[in-house]
Amino acid sequence: MDDFKITFEPLKKTIKVSAEESILDAAKRSDILINASCGGEGICGRCKIILKKGGYETISTEKLTPEEIEKGYLFACQTYPKGDITIEIPPESRIKKAQKIATLSGARNLYRLLTSTGIECEPIIKKVFLKLPPPNLQDNISDFDRLKRELTTVYGDGRWIDIDIDILTKLSNTLREKGWEVTLNLIELPDSIKIVDIHPGEILKQRFGIAVDIGTTTIVVYIVDLSNGKVIDHTATYNSQVHCGDDVITRIIYATERGGLKELKNLVTADINKLIAKLIHKQHLDPGLIESIVIAGNTTMTHLFYGINPRYIREEPYIPVTNLFPLAKAGRVGIDVNKEAVIYTMPGVASYVGGDITSGVIASGLYNERELSMFIDIGTNGEIVLGNSEWLVTAACSAGPCFEGSGIKSGMRATEGAIEQLEINRKTYEPVLKIIGNTPPSGLCGSGMIDAIAEMFLAGIVDQKGNINKEIHSPRIRKGDNGLEYVIAWGNETDTGIDIVLTEVDIENIMRAKAAIYAGFSTLLKEVGFGFSDIRKFFIGGGFGNYLDIEKAIIIGLLPDIPHEKFIFLGNTSITGAYLCLLCSEMRKRAEEAAKKMTYIELSVSRSFMDEYMSALFLPHTNIDAFPSLKSSRRLSLRF
Amino acid sequence: MDDFKITFEPLKKTIKVSAEESILDAAKRSDILINASCGGEGICGRCKIILKKGGYETISTEKLTPEEIEKGYLFACQTYPKGDITIEIPPESRIKKAQKIATLSGARNLYRLLTSTGIECEPIIKKVFLKLPPPNLQDNISDFDRLKRELTTVYGDGRWIDIDIDILTKLSNTLREKGWEVTLNLIELPDSIKIVDIHPGEILKQRFGIAVDIGTTTIVVYIVDLSNGKVIDHTATYNSQVHCGDDVITRIIYATERGGLKELKNLVTADINKLIAKLIHKQHLDPGLIESIVIAGNTTMTHLFYGINPRYIREEPYIPVTNLFPLAKAGRVGIDVNKEAVIYTMPGVASYVGGDITSGVIASGLYNERELSMFIDIGTNGEIVLGNSEWLVTAACSAGPCFEGSGIKSGMRATEGAIEQLEINRKTYEPVLKIIGNTPPSGLCGSGMIDAIAEMFLAGIVDQKGNINKEIHSPRIRKGDNGLEYVIAWGNETDTGIDIVLTEVDIENIMRAKAAIYAGFSTLLKEVGFGFSDIRKFFIGGGFGNYLDIEKAIIIGLLPDIPHEKFIFLGNTSITGAYLCLLCSEMRKRAEEAAKKMTYIELSVSRSFMDEYMSALFLPHTNIDAFPSLKSSRRLSLRF
Repeated sequence: MDDFKITFEPLKKTIKVSAEESILDAAKRSDILINASCGGEGICGRCKIILKKGGYETISTEKLTPEEIEKGYLFACQTYPKGDITIEIPPESRIKKAQKIATLSGARNLYRLLTSTGIECEPIIKKVFLKLPPPNLQDNISDFDRLKRELTTVYGDGRWIDIDIDILTKLSNTLREKGWEVTLNLIELPDSIKIVDIHPGEILKQRFGIAVDIGTTTIVVYIVDLSNGKVIDHTATYNSQVHCGDDVITRIIYATERGGLKELKNLVTADINKLIAKLIHKQHLDPGLIESIVIAGNTTMTHLFYGINPRYIREEPYIPVTNLFPLAKAGRVGIDVNKEAVIYTMPGVASYVGGDITSGVIASGLYNERELSMFIDIGTNGEIVLGNSEWLVTAACSAGPCFEGSGIKSGMRATEGAIEQLEINRKTYEPVLKIIGNTPPSGLCGSGMIDAIAEMFLAGIVDQKGNINKEIHSPRIRKGDNGLEYVIAWGNETDTGIDIVLTEVDIENIMRAKAAIYAGFSTLLKEVGFGFSDIRKFFIGGGFGNYLDIEKAIIIGLLPDIPHEKFIFLGNTSITGAYLCLLCSEMRKRAEEAAKKMTYIELSVSRSFMDEYMSALFLPHTNIDAFPSLKSSRRLSLRF
Repeated sequence: MDDFKITFEPLKKTIKVSAEESILDAAKRSDILINASCGGEGICGRCKIILKKGGYETISTEKLTPEEIEKGYLFACQTYPKGDITIEIPPESRIKKAQKIATLSGARNLYRLLTSTGIECEPIIKKVFLKLPPPNLQDNISDFDRLKRELTTVYGDGRWIDIDIDILTKLSNTLREKGWEVTLNLIELPDSIKIVDIHPGEILKQRFGIAVDIGTTTIVVYIVDLSNGKVIDHTATYNSQVHCGDDVITRIIYATERGGLKELKNLVTADINKLIAKLIHKQHLDPGLIESIVIAGNTTMTHLFYGINPRYIREEPYIPVTNLFPLAKAGRVGIDVNKEAVIYTMPGVASYVGGDITSGVIASGLYNERELSMFIDIGTNGEIVLGNSEWLVTAACSAGPCFEGSGIKSGMRATEGAIEQLEINRKTYEPVLKIIGNTPPSGLCGSGMIDAIAEMFLAGIVDQKGNINKEIHSPRIRKGDNGLEYVIAWGNETDTGIDIVLTEVDIENIMRAKAAIYAGFSTLLKEVGFGFSDIRKFFIGGGFGNYLDIEKAIIIGLLPDIPHEKFIFLGNTSITGAYLCLLCSEMRKRAEEAAKKMTYIELSVSRSFMDEYMSALFLPHTNIDAFPSLKSSRRLSLRF
């Protein structure tokens, strides 16, 4: 089995592999991060490695340039060792560990806000302290009967009292540990009360919960003091499933292959466990006191978390197994916290509008708005909700993951080294860059792409159709492998030593994505007989929103041309909604009502959507009348 | 770890052991059966072995005779290998595999009886066949929503429909496997319907269930066709927990020691799994179609089956963790049949009146008798229920396991080689034996002991106090290690080569047991103001009943002196009750009502019980007036 050794540089990590295992697979199981958008299918051309030493066999080098081949470049998914080898993972193939991805999104203040509005905060678990009379020969009913008798006296109302075998196994010792004083964790159901955990003594105030956002790209965990709503600590990591593909579609395909579903479930479970363990350790918490967990994720992520087959999400007519998940116990789904902790899952709406969006509706307060409002969440996909406290419609536009770097030559996620803002001098065509972490740049993240295209458009480098003007005399405008391209940073300035460029193909991809999102907005509005001017509040969720320049997003026609003050950036609304539902039964009730109320519009089969989409494949839009502020702008007038 | 080898003869089985492992422990984990009533504590002196070859260290040989020591006898629990060794397990230390322990107890006819009395037969699982409309773009709700919609239309009544994550994980494939036709396994609860399993296509008639009797000594399994009530097959084995002690008290002590509870749980689970696997294999059944299981056992056995701490059952004031167990899933408690099969546990009453006795109340029909009746189950313990369809009282008498051979020098269980009947010539004092399996005898089982004492009493060998008359001139009456003894079979006639005897100590033990049981009867009757003559039916359950000679049982004062026709032998009522509850919701309802209704009388603290017990420590009883037929018997008159 373990035939050869691979040494990875610059990590200086050596692992054993068999001759049948690709370098990508070997790296994956050893937790070595190599970019592989397509999940190792030989399609994306991202998993480049450089062979330093040793024999190998490679299936295809098709997408490599002659220069790369000369330098020893290979694709990790296409290459198998033929002996001990040493390889280098070049900077462009490395996945950087997430740094400070989580933002508290104002969660610290949300609890205060919640309580101040008079909403009753009630976690999933109800805690009851009981002092039982000790047994004697005249009163020697069973432990469970004694517990039920007291519970009925103190708290009950004739409802049937249910208990799990797991709790019965620890009942006798727990009752006697602190002289027949115990604290029960209960769940109230319509006709029964379920005892889900029991602790010796009185533990009414030490109560902790966990909120988890399972993003396609990033996983965020909050640990919350349920007695006062404080977020004690939070952390985040990349979703290790990125090893198996960048977007939900690739993951679904991966899941339907042999063992893939189990692998994906285990990857995300392990990620969450690591994050929780880290926080518990850091904060010196007793994991036994973690009583509840709320999970928010898109429909595919939630299916994978529970190990439920996501296959039919992808195939027409796009059917998830479920949008509403039963309460589960942590121990049963592999979460290594108190195994009796109860997991609540944010309810979803459809295959492409999941619990993360319901979370967003709760976090934004959209469900409570009296006037027409819109909520969008642009992550790996783009979801839109339109409505108010009376009604809600929702849709998903398959924008694709290009704003997260996928499918864009120099694209990357919004982490250290990403160009997040840029301006281009109108005369010299030289750019000025703002880079996350103030390091040499590694690539272009979503907000950087939007800035780049807007600035190139304003500077006349691209026209309304997204074509680069080859007449411009500048070394930065040149012909590359994918047609014309604009050089944003020269190799000698970059972290990778490679030029950072935006190609015509990239621009076309980004325009398709922005057109899909904009067409989503307009189709949804049309469906219910409104226009952009009717929108009072435009909530923007998702990590994307943190760096977005509204004006430039309007210039490229990603956002509608409405007054800037209507846009409200909310950051990660998926985790915020999960946090609110962790604390508050009223929020869970509203989330369930909202999920039920949301009418899902399937854009992929809408004729109107296709028309809107085609019209939006311009900068900013075929119909410039839809962008009145741009039309009247002096700065832009030249361009039309 | 594996330091040495032990070869066991006559099994010719060799196993590896460490120097720290006693021979008993090594045998135990290798499934080699050696008698050890005390569970390896060095108390019972049963686990004798003979060392044939090799070095060893032994802690104590205290209970061995000089002759035994000379022959190489050792105790398996006290001996540790010091090199490779060969040992022989002598016949008296072997536990024979159960042979034909299970009797159908008329179960074949019970179903017919049930249905003929108009009782509705309804298994635990409700099965519903559904044809779902396949999804399309206009109707693309989730799989679970589609299922709920159809279920509500066809079957539902507004009750909430619940499902387990495990079922969701297989939902999408199952729905599509046979073109959206599925059969659901449902459990109906007061305000919800729970989907507990799902199969593709229509499977309404292939439905199987399992009834299990977990006896302290023996485990019996029935496999039942739920569509027609037929017992397809049945089998039995010794409860492997006997390795850890003969009776419930020893098992409870074992369970409270390090790892003991888990070991006991695993032993009984493995036994049940083996029995089920054997039957499934033999009958070519699809284990996936086993939908429900009913477990009957005493309170300790049930606690151990679920891995619930039984410790406080033993300590005053004798508290079980629970008498009523929630429905469980087979997969979660380690039963290797269809993991979604639902387990129902026969409800118990108190620490020493368990689900096996409720089973007996159902199987005997006592819950339905209009006139006063008594039910007794003499297994490893003795339980009594008295009452009718209006009321029920119950008690347990710690008779001890002597009728199963424990604590009796030549005692053994009622298996092959056991003397089950005997008569003694009134003049020659020579006995005539009837042996199970017609083989050379190995020992004396419960019914043999009763016969022996009754015959010895009738022949004048023992007096009313149980003392052996040393004046009698017969080689069969002699002085042994434990005082006077009567030789029932000489070593040259027996399977073991050892004399089979009944000693004064044995007789004292048996008289204590029979006194406890008889005192239980009379105390219970007194408590409710009745006498023996008021009893119309006297049901006798338990394997014990199969061989019992009523007259002799009355002569020794074990059974009351009432007309013989009132005694009804029912065999194993624990398994019969479980079988009935597997088939019939009405029976489950009645079992639950009966368990609730039974008033438990704690005999161990009853003053009246102690008086009754003391009076019963004679043959047949201090008060001969209580035994009118014996008093007037010509045969017996000499004896009083």
